[in-house]
Amino acid sequence: MNWLYALDLIGTLVFAISGVLTAIHKKFDVVGSIVIGLVTAVGGGTLRDVLIGKTPVGWMQDLNYFYAILLAVILSYLFEKHIIKWTKIMFIFDTIGIGVFTILGIQKTATTGLGLPIILFMGVISAVFGGVIRDVLTNEVPLIFRKEIYASACLLGGIVFVTLEFLNLPANFNAVCCMLIISIIRYFAIKKHWSLHF
Amino acid sequence: MNWLYALDLIGTLVFAISGVLTAIHKKFDVVGSIVIGLVTAVGGGTLRDVLIGKTPVGWMQDLNYFYAILLAVILSYLFEKHIIKWTKIMFIFDTIGIGVFTILGIQKTATTGLGLPIILFMGVISAVFGGVIRDVLTNEVPLIFRKEIYASACLLGGIVFVTLEFLNLPANFNAVCCMLIISIIRYFAIKKHWSLHF
Amino acid sequence: MNWLYALDLIGTLVFAISGVLTAIHKKFDVVGSIVIGLVTAVGGGTLRDVLIGKTPVGWMQDLNYFYAILLAVILSYLFEKHIIKWTKIMFIFDTIGIGVFTILGIQKTATTGLGLPIILFMGVISAVFGGVIRDVLTNEVPLIFRKEIYASACLLGGIVFVTLEFLNLPANFNAVCCMLIISIIRYFAIKKHWSLHF
Repeated sequence: MNWLYALDLIGTLVFAISGVLTAIHKKFDVVGSIVIGLVTAVGGGTLRDVLIGKTPVGWMQDLNYFYAILLAVILSYLFEKHIIKWTKIMFIFDTIGIGVFTILGIQKTATTGLGLPIILFMGVISAVFGGVIRDVLTNEVPLIFRKEIYASACLLGGIVFVTLEFLNLPANFNAVCCMLIISIIRYFAIKKHWSLHF
Repeated sequence: MNWLYALDLIGTLVFAISGVLTAIHKKFDVVGSIVIGLVTAVGGGTLRDVLIGKTPVGWMQDLNYFYAILLAVILSYLFEKHIIKWTKIMFIFDTIGIGVFTILGIQKTATTGLGLPIILFMGVISAVFGGVIRDVLTNEVPLIFRKEIYASACLLGGIVFVTLEFLNLPANFNAVCCMLIISIIRYFAIKKHWSLHF
Repeated sequence: MNWLYALDLIGTLVFAISGVLTAIHKKFDVVGSIVIGLVTAVGGGTLRDVLIGKTPVGWMQDLNYFYAILLAVILSYLFEKHIIKWTKIMFIFDTIGIGVFTILGIQKTATTGLGLPIILFMGVISAVFGGVIRDVLTNEVPLIFRKEIYASACLLGGIVFVTLEFLNLPANFNAVCCMLIISIIRYFAIKKHWSLHF
C-alpha cells in the first residue's frame, strides 16, 4: 500500500512541525526543537516497536522518516508565522496522520501474533504517544488525558479497521474507512465540544 | 507457583485501581484514566522486560493482565466513592502487590544470566517503576523519591528472597518470607514515620 | 581501546555524582538519589541500546558500571559540601564524559548497519539523554532544551569523529580530536554565552 507509506511520511512531517512549533513557542533552542519535533513525530511508533520487540525501531531503518523530520524543522523555522495561521490545514493533516499511524501500528503488531486487544492498543499507542512524550518532555500534563477524545477516535477507527480486515474486505477500503471514522469523530468532537468525563 | 500468578493478577488489579483513582482525582478523561491505570499496573514490569530484552513484554502475551486492568477501570468508576474509603484493604493488597512484583521480577531476570546486583535492581524496578511512570505522566515528582521507604522495602525483601533461594530452601517458603519482610517494613515505616534522609 | 573504557567508567562516576547531588539538593531520600544518579549516568546509553535492540542493555552486563554508580553515591554523601565547590573539576570530567559517551554511542550503533544520520543521532542520545531523563524525573523542563549548546557540541564532535574514521585515521587520534572539539565548544559556549536561539 504505497499511498499509506506516502501519508505516513506526510503525517511524520506534520507531527514534527507541530512539535517544533511547540518547542519554539516554549523558547527551546534549535536542538531542543529538533528533539521535540522528532519525538512528537516518531515517539508513538518507537514505543510500539520497543514494546513488541521490533528493534532497531522502524523509523531508524528508513532514512526517509529522518529527512521528513529535518524538512519539518527547516519549514518550521522558515514559515513559523504562516504555519501557525494554517490551523485548518494542520488539523486535516494531523487527523490523516493519526489515522495512518493507527493503521500501520495495527498492521505491524498483527505480525507478532499478540492478542487482538493488544493489537488495537498498539494502534492507539502509535498514534497518540508521540504527543504524550512531547508533553512530558515539555513538562505539561499530557493533553490527551484531559481534553480531546483523540485516543478514543483512534480506538474506534482501529476497531472498524480490524473488523473490516476480519471480513476480508480490500485493505485499501478498510484503511480509508478507518481514517474517515477518525476524521468524523474528531470533527464532531471539536464542533460539539464532546468529551468523555463521567 | 500458581498462587504467585493469582497474586500477580490481584496486584495488577489493585495497582490499576489506584492509578485510575489518581487519574479521576486529577480530572483526566476515561482514556487518560485507562492509560494511567495500565501504566501504574504494568509499567514496572514493562520497563524490566524492555531493559533485559524479553520482548514482546510479558503482560502483552497473557491477556489476563489486560482483563485485570479492564476490570480495575470498571470497578474504579462504579465504586469510586467506596474504594477511596477502603484505605486499609488497598494498603494490604498494594503491599502484597509490590512483594509479588519484586519476586517475579527477580525470577524473570535470573533467567538472563545477569549479575546479582542487576537481578535485585530489576526486582525493585518491577515493583516501583509503575508508580514512577504514573507520577511522571501526571506531572508530579515521583512519590517514592521523597516519602516512603517503598523501594528500600522491596530491596530488602529481594535480598532475603535471593539469600533463601541460594540456600536451596523451598521457593514457596522464600516467597512468603520476602513478602512478609516487605509488609513488616512498610507497616513500621508508616507507623513510626521512618524515612531515609541523611 | 582500554583508555576509552576507563574514561567511560570515570564519566559514569561523574555523571552519577552530579545526579546524586541534584537529588540531594531536591531533598530526595537515599533511594531516590541512587535512582537519579543511576539514570543520569546510564540513561542515555540505556535508551540507545533499547532503540537499536542491543538488550540486555550494555551497562547491565558489566557490573563495573554498577560499582562506579555505587561509588558515586557513597562519595556524594561523604563529600557533598566539597564536591559542590569543585565546579571546574566536575566540568572537565563532565565534558570528558559526554565526549566518551558520544564516541562509544557512535561505535556501538555503527555495528548495527543503520544509516549515518542515525548513528550520529545515537551518539548524541548516548551523551545527553541521561540528563534529560534526570530532568523529567525531577519534574524540570530538560536543561539541554533551553540553555547550553551541550547537544550541538556532541553532534559536531560526532561529525568530526565519523569523518576522521572515514578517512581511516587511527581510532585513538579520532577519539581525542572528537573530545577536544566538544571541550573547546563547551568552553567557549560558557565563556562567550553562546546560544542557539533564532
